[in-house]
Amino acid sequence: MDLLGTQFIGNQTSQKSSQQFYGVNPKSGENLAGAFSEATESEVDEAVKAAEKAFPAYRDTHPEARAKFLEQIADEILALGDVLIERAMAETALPQVRLQGERGRTMGQMKLFAQVIREGSWVDARIETANPDRQPFPKADIRHMMRPLGPVGVFGASNFPLAFSVAGGDTASALAAGCPVVVKGHPAHPGTSELVARAIISAAQKTGMPEGVFSMVQGASHEVGGWLVKHPLIHAIGFTGSFRGGKALFDIANQREVPIPVFAEMGSTNPVFLLPGAIEAHAENIAKSLAGSINLGVGQFCTNPGLVFLPENTRTEVFKKELVGSISEIEAGTMLTTGIKSAYERGADALAGESNISTLAKGKETATTAGVKSQVFFTQIDDFHGKPEWAEEVFGPSSLLVQSSSKEDMMEAARNLEGHLTATVHGTEEDLKAYADLFAVLERKVGRLIINGYPTGVEVCHAMVHGGPYPATTAPQTTSVGTNAINRFARPVCYQSFPDFLLPDALKNENPLGIWRMINGEMNKDHI
Amino acid sequence: MDLLGTQFIGNQTSQKSSQQFYGVNPKSGENLAGAFSEATESEVDEAVKAAEKAFPAYRDTHPEARAKFLEQIADEILALGDVLIERAMAETALPQVRLQGERGRTMGQMKLFAQVIREGSWVDARIETANPDRQPFPKADIRHMMRPLGPVGVFGASNFPLAFSVAGGDTASALAAGCPVVVKGHPAHPGTSELVARAIISAAQKTGMPEGVFSMVQGASHEVGGWLVKHPLIHAIGFTGSFRGGKALFDIANQREVPIPVFAEMGSTNPVFLLPGAIEAHAENIAKSLAGSINLGVGQFCTNPGLVFLPENTRTEVFKKELVGSISEIEAGTMLTTGIKSAYERGADALAGESNISTLAKGKETATTAGVKSQVFFTQIDDFHGKPEWAEEVFGPSSLLVQSSSKEDMMEAARNLEGHLTATVHGTEEDLKAYADLFAVLERKVGRLIINGYPTGVEVCHAMVHGGPYPATTAPQTTSVGTNAINRFARPVCYQSFPDFLLPDALKNENPLGIWRMINGEMNKDHI
Repeated sequence: MDLLGTQFIGNQTSQKSSQQFYGVNPKSGENLAGAFSEATESEVDEAVKAAEKAFPAYRDTHPEARAKFLEQIADEILALGDVLIERAMAETALPQVRLQGERGRTMGQMKLFAQVIREGSWVDARIETANPDRQPFPKADIRHMMRPLGPVGVFGASNFPLAFSVAGGDTASALAAGCPVVVKGHPAHPGTSELVARAIISAAQKTGMPEGVFSMVQGASHEVGGWLVKHPLIHAIGFTGSFRGGKALFDIANQREVPIPVFAEMGSTNPVFLLPGAIEAHAENIAKSLAGSINLGVGQFCTNPGLVFLPENTRTEVFKKELVGSISEIEAGTMLTTGIKSAYERGADALAGESNISTLAKGKETATTAGVKSQVFFTQIDDFHGKPEWAEEVFGPSSLLVQSSSKEDMMEAARNLEGHLTATVHGTEEDLKAYADLFAVLERKVGRLIINGYPTGVEVCHAMVHGGPYPATTAPQTTSVGTNAINRFARPVCYQSFPDFLLPDALKNENPLGIWRMINGEMNKDHI
Repeated sequence: MDLLGTQFIGNQTSQKSSQQFYGVNPKSGENLAGAFSEATESEVDEAVKAAEKAFPAYRDTHPEARAKFLEQIADEILALGDVLIERAMAETALPQVRLQGERGRTMGQMKLFAQVIREGSWVDARIETANPDRQPFPKADIRHMMRPLGPVGVFGASNFPLAFSVAGGDTASALAAGCPVVVKGHPAHPGTSELVARAIISAAQKTGMPEGVFSMVQGASHEVGGWLVKHPLIHAIGFTGSFRGGKALFDIANQREVPIPVFAEMGSTNPVFLLPGAIEAHAENIAKSLAGSINLGVGQFCTNPGLVFLPENTRTEVFKKELVGSISEIEAGTMLTTGIKSAYERGADALAGESNISTLAKGKETATTAGVKSQVFFTQIDDFHGKPEWAEEVFGPSSLLVQSSSKEDMMEAARNLEGHLTATVHGTEEDLKAYADLFAVLERKVGRLIINGYPTGVEVCHAMVHGGPYPATTAPQTTSVGTNAINRFARPVCYQSFPDFLLPDALKNENPLGIWRMINGEMNKDHI
């Protein structure tokens, strides 16, 4: 399948600029086949206008029709076959098995959101029936449901070329909510982005969706993304990436004449707390599994455990020795881009250069252009207190161990944490009882708390929260993974004294969608 | 009951500043008895720190205990008796019956939120049970629920001295969610604020709530509010008031080191569309009721109908004549403050001064210091197009009629609207069918759509949406009235592989709260 290198505006391709960029093989540093045109401001404008034009019809599609569209996207992505996996491997240096797994997850997300909108109760339908005889004033018939916001801009992420990119979780949840999507593809995998964009457009055509329901613009410059966020017809932004990038979009969005929400997931250090009993009982196993979690995907996960608090007891040295052993055997791999590699090495070097931080373990060098080695650092809690910058994310396969000799020191570290996506605690039942107050602190710091597990590996399900207090995200009241993510792209609208024929299906008397509704305060699936 | 004029910090009073301000009688312009101390920055800091200290215990109160606290607040407000009504009348010039009704609404809001947290399902509990045998990876036990944000700052509004002030909807929903509240009282009714604050503190003490769960600071300057929004321990802001005020707080909040959400309801013009059949059939009745809606509460409602589109047909002149007749008989009344009166008159004079706007009707002068007269203006749609400033809110008892001769003109006006709280349409069944596309446009512009009614009068119930796109609010995805308002002050938190004893009650296996939960995608009240 030849790559076109164009913008995809509704069902049209467009190539107005002569400025081009290329996908790069992070192993060799060489440009890959296929030049990609940099989007112009007028192309971004056309894509957003097409989305706006599609919105009224798309908003009012039957949920079953939207569900079929999402399922068709999954099918079309699978139908790309090995071409997609091969291009993604070449652009990202991620291994085949990982990308096949990620493709499965991407398809699974589409199908899960199809299920959510087919089931239909997510719209939070609430009906208060009229009471004309109420004193002193009659009560009107009032009905409430979530309705889509309008066209949404989605930024592809570098580290999940499929599951957080063109057809990723933001796109799936926005399309499910009834919002047209304009994607800004991540420049680190433009070929992968194009293939997936074409799959989505094909699915839209086959399932009869209005033209403009999906568009994609590409570009290596920050300007393209800025035009998207500033466009007056864009109603919300989904983003996964760096703090710097997310914060920049958040500021642009808040300075618009009409501010819009930016759902930016900006990563975190994902602190891990190892409690004394757990280390006594499972030092070796925790060390081995932690080394695996630190290195999973070359450490390129938002949920990578970058900060580990461990207690000082008779088995601490065993834990450290086992971790050093595991890390030193690891060939971490090739990072997504040379830019990401450089940032990782700058971050790791900064930690290594601190006088009170020692380098505990180094993995094997990976001899490719964007290859790196895993690194584990060590410090004492007294040195760590007062150094909030040591708790900042170093994106990649590194982690900082912080050793403490008292519970209070660990508690103090927990209280001083900024917002993170996750916090993990390893403990025996006795530990967990003794550290109940630690959870009370950690709950305020993160979106997800994990016991005796590892933060990497985010289950896509109804109960997932992939979010957390700032600076982990710009929108702590939401999640970017799991079905609750659909609510980011909708808002409540209330219909007072409407005749049945003018109401959306979800609010009609006979409940034609068969959904759960709150009727005068009671949840049921009744007719009125 | 003598007024203390102090700050209320937890169970303590504080009076650090010698700077004072007074309540003012808007009818006479004279200061009322009782001097009020201006809060200092350190008093604001103490109040917020007390809220932070109270948070862990208050967050984990049993919902039944919180419900009793809210109900006790209602009882304590009622127990203030005529003292409260009389002070509010003196400070606001609002009539006794209105204030008694507003007190009932304020108490009703507290009791409704008590009911919501006692029923308990608002927390959106979601449970995915573990599947250790799943391939290729085991599935962990994952549970999700809404948890309170932390201390919340609430700004009292001028126009609802009870229902949107110290114990208003923002306070009720934040306390219900489990967030301590620090109120900044509105300087237009400091005595009313103090009485209500004392009622809340008394209720907190009687129901054993942690000290600091509620505090109130007062001040006539903008500084006091600024300190509250900037305080690093404040996690969200509730505000009802002017666009200028709300936008200023929104900007401060977004420029904090850690940005926080500002739920600012900033009013709107609440466009009304009169369709041809409705005018043919009900010209007189609509005119009379509309005049009443325009003048309700001296026009000092966020939902005041300030913009009316009417068609040109055989009964248009009858409608206008009836409206002129009704308006000219009205003595609008005394506004809340002389500042609000001046702003109203500036806004009305600006419309009156436009060459293409005529003054259709004037009510009777109200001969008090802050007294005003009602005014209705008239223009043609061709003149209105291209004048977005004519659609801006003039807070007070005025309205602009815009006459159009075609459906397309009305549609164009609808498409050009900014965000508003409400839009109202009067039509016969035939009208509503012919104008179905008008609703598709209006749905994107407002939080609440009303058919054959009037926007004033906001029902406090499960289905209400009192919100809407910017600039009506800074948070279009929320509502400030109705039970959905509780979600503004909470965020989803996810618990992975937790032992039962460490889970919040809402997520424990046996469902001890008996709430609706989504278990593996199915809604039920089952045990696990």
